[in-house]
Amino acid sequence: MPNNFITREDLPLFNNGSRFLTGAALLKDGKRDLAGTFDLFVRELPSVRNYLVFAGLEYIIEYLINFKFTDKQLAYLKKAYGLDEQTVDYYKKFKFTGDVDAMPEGTLCFAAEPIIRITAPIIEGIMTELYTNNIIMLQTMHASKIARAVFAAKRKKFIIGASSRSHGAESAVKAVRAAEITGANFTLTLAAMQLKINKPEGGAAPHYYIMSYPDELCAFRSYAYYFGQKMFFLIDTYKSITGLKNFIIVAKEMEQRGKKMRGIALDSGDLYKLSVLARKMLDRADLNYVKIAAMSNLDEHKIKKLEDKKAPIDIYAGATAILNVTDAPKLEVVYKLSALKDKNQWMPKMKLSSKKISLPGRKQVFRIEKHGQYIGDVIGLENEKIKGKKLLVPYIKNGKLVKKLPSLEGIRKYYEREKKKFKRELFAIDKKVKYPVEI
Amino acid sequence: MPNNFITREDLPLFNNGSRFLTGAALLKDGKRDLAGTFDLFVRELPSVRNYLVFAGLEYIIEYLINFKFTDKQLAYLKKAYGLDEQTVDYYKKFKFTGDVDAMPEGTLCFAAEPIIRITAPIIEGIMTELYTNNIIMLQTMHASKIARAVFAAKRKKFIIGASSRSHGAESAVKAVRAAEITGANFTLTLAAMQLKINKPEGGAAPHYYIMSYPDELCAFRSYAYYFGQKMFFLIDTYKSITGLKNFIIVAKEMEQRGKKMRGIALDSGDLYKLSVLARKMLDRADLNYVKIAAMSNLDEHKIKKLEDKKAPIDIYAGATAILNVTDAPKLEVVYKLSALKDKNQWMPKMKLSSKKISLPGRKQVFRIEKHGQYIGDVIGLENEKIKGKKLLVPYIKNGKLVKKLPSLEGIRKYYEREKKKFKRELFAIDKKVKYPVEI
Repeated sequence: MPNNFITREDLPLFNNGSRFLTGAALLKDGKRDLAGTFDLFVRELPSVRNYLVFAGLEYIIEYLINFKFTDKQLAYLKKAYGLDEQTVDYYKKFKFTGDVDAMPEGTLCFAAEPIIRITAPIIEGIMTELYTNNIIMLQTMHASKIARAVFAAKRKKFIIGASSRSHGAESAVKAVRAAEITGANFTLTLAAMQLKINKPEGGAAPHYYIMSYPDELCAFRSYAYYFGQKMFFLIDTYKSITGLKNFIIVAKEMEQRGKKMRGIALDSGDLYKLSVLARKMLDRADLNYVKIAAMSNLDEHKIKKLEDKKAPIDIYAGATAILNVTDAPKLEVVYKLSALKDKNQWMPKMKLSSKKISLPGRKQVFRIEKHGQYIGDVIGLENEKIKGKKLLVPYIKNGKLVKKLPSLEGIRKYYEREKKKFKRELFAIDKKVKYPVEI
Repeated sequence: MPNNFITREDLPLFNNGSRFLTGAALLKDGKRDLAGTFDLFVRELPSVRNYLVFAGLEYIIEYLINFKFTDKQLAYLKKAYGLDEQTVDYYKKFKFTGDVDAMPEGTLCFAAEPIIRITAPIIEGIMTELYTNNIIMLQTMHASKIARAVFAAKRKKFIIGASSRSHGAESAVKAVRAAEITGANFTLTLAAMQLKINKPEGGAAPHYYIMSYPDELCAFRSYAYYFGQKMFFLIDTYKSITGLKNFIIVAKEMEQRGKKMRGIALDSGDLYKLSVLARKMLDRADLNYVKIAAMSNLDEHKIKKLEDKKAPIDIYAGATAILNVTDAPKLEVVYKLSALKDKNQWMPKMKLSSKKISLPGRKQVFRIEKHGQYIGDVIGLENEKIKGKKLLVPYIKNGKLVKKLPSLEGIRKYYEREKKKFKRELFAIDKKVKYPVEI
């Protein structure tokens, strides 16, 4: 059976072999203490994004301060890459001793802005690059996508429905974390338990639940009896109209017992027409308290269209398009050496190959506010005198945590507060809007 | 700090809340022993796929035979969803007692064909649906994508380069497993160790390694000294031509010491032109043994173009486009109740809502061979007399494993053997070719 679970202990090996060999060479060349500053940034925004919501820092902080190779890993590295005793001994004592400055999670960020700045011996920067890039890409990509869906849903609720539609279980759990930051709800029980979020959504029973009963009416009666007040009823197992009629029969029966049903779920067909018809039929039966959920693999564009037409939908659920971020399934997260410390003197560094020029020097991002609104960012050098909020703040100093990390709720509140300071047009779903970033 | 690791123990909670409530309702309605057959299949192939390579079964088998709720999970479920004692007690004893028939991993499969057929009490089918779908989607999607890149590379080597470009660490490790099945190489150390694959690739050192030395020539000398025979040299940290010249100087110096350098890596610019120039310059310097690797985020289309032009590239490395499967980042994996067992009699079941009709009855997939070549599949009922290889074979009976699972190498050999029996045109990169599947 495969060993298919990843633990904290495994993460130091989340590396290409090149990293262990490169580290070994630097060590032998006496570059053990040569320090560098690395900038992690997104090279350019996907064409379908006006902004990104930075997320994932907590995972990276946790990873960096716990970094340690095990004896088993060292034995593997030695064998797999032919490392010598001296190198193995160095990796045995290896830990992250550097500094981390970063934007707080939930910060809106833009292309080319350093999101995380790591200053550490080069070998430490090499060892921690890949996992850091990986997690920041995943969390930021999810948070940025979900933020759009929540925005499109306006005052309605946006839920992540079928969490199984992700690239693996880890990705699903992490997507729920990103959803929690950006104000969405979700239905994944594992994530709710792990992240200690105490309001998991019930969702709707699968079609085959309905099919396990002699007929739909019979299934609905049982469904209503056990969880009519908690869950949504899929009305399209057979025919949507019949399903809706059966729901109404059962909802009225439940009223006789003094119970109110929560809602119906639309999972296929023309969601606008169905929602209008359903609202009409429900209201006519004096069931105006029954909510309508739509869960047919929605994304921000489909939600916007429904909202523009004022569809009487109360809850939108997204899944595949959201979890796999089908419109921008990657971010060009890069990690570049921007300065080297030689004889206690910082020297700017840059790479010159075609089209991939990086900005040299130890940088800061200044966010300029005017009359309570953000009007632009300036990427400057850390010691430049620029008026504006410094977005990069210290989290780790000499390998030790120096800032208390906020709770998920704290991050969400910060995100919501910050969001209000940007012009509303930045959040347009279908229009490219550029926020000014100067260099 | 978040609990951000998923263990085997956690997987029973990889469910939407609806599943626990639905299970509870079925239990209370006396449907504890009502059995059903569920088909897992891909509703339709992505427009950019002629076939899929089925992968992920081993993970699912492992999951099913180990399924068990912990006391902590039961306490959480009770509280989060208001489950009563009777239900909690049922979940406490819950295990998977059903049958699993499936295609062997590495089988080429097509739209609508049941890949896995699960026969079990309905409640068990409900509990195990989401994780099963999740893993099969991820592994099959990766294997199918990587298979194309390997095919495009013809006799050249295809490597998965920067494994960090995946949706999380789990996804990266699982992608490497899919790569191993479909004949690709890879560079992710964690995956190599976990999957016990003893041939991890070294790859190339990052640009900032080169930048840590006073100049490129100096960096290359150190690089060559420590791992010139194992790794590839990025020649574009500064200017590609200068980089190539520096490489040649160092390679000749190494020859003086009796050592042969492994190769150079092209990471940006016009790969075709650069590879032609590099081959010419290398050959002129009598370095015809030096290999040329191209690693500029390649996919099967870019590889095909380079191969069509006969680019002198020896090794192709893919990353983002491959790991995130940017052309088809999801598969429409569905899990449908196809039959119910009532009073020991199997009754076909189907869902009728618009456009999502499912095929009723307990099915088998028959693969028809003629003169050593597969000419088409027939999806029939399990007891139909159809001449052809039965693709669904028993893996689990009454909750117990009844078939030895092959090693990764075994799966790859089976995949390669089977692949040869399909017409070559099916593997076209740019052309839609339909393999006949009858119902």
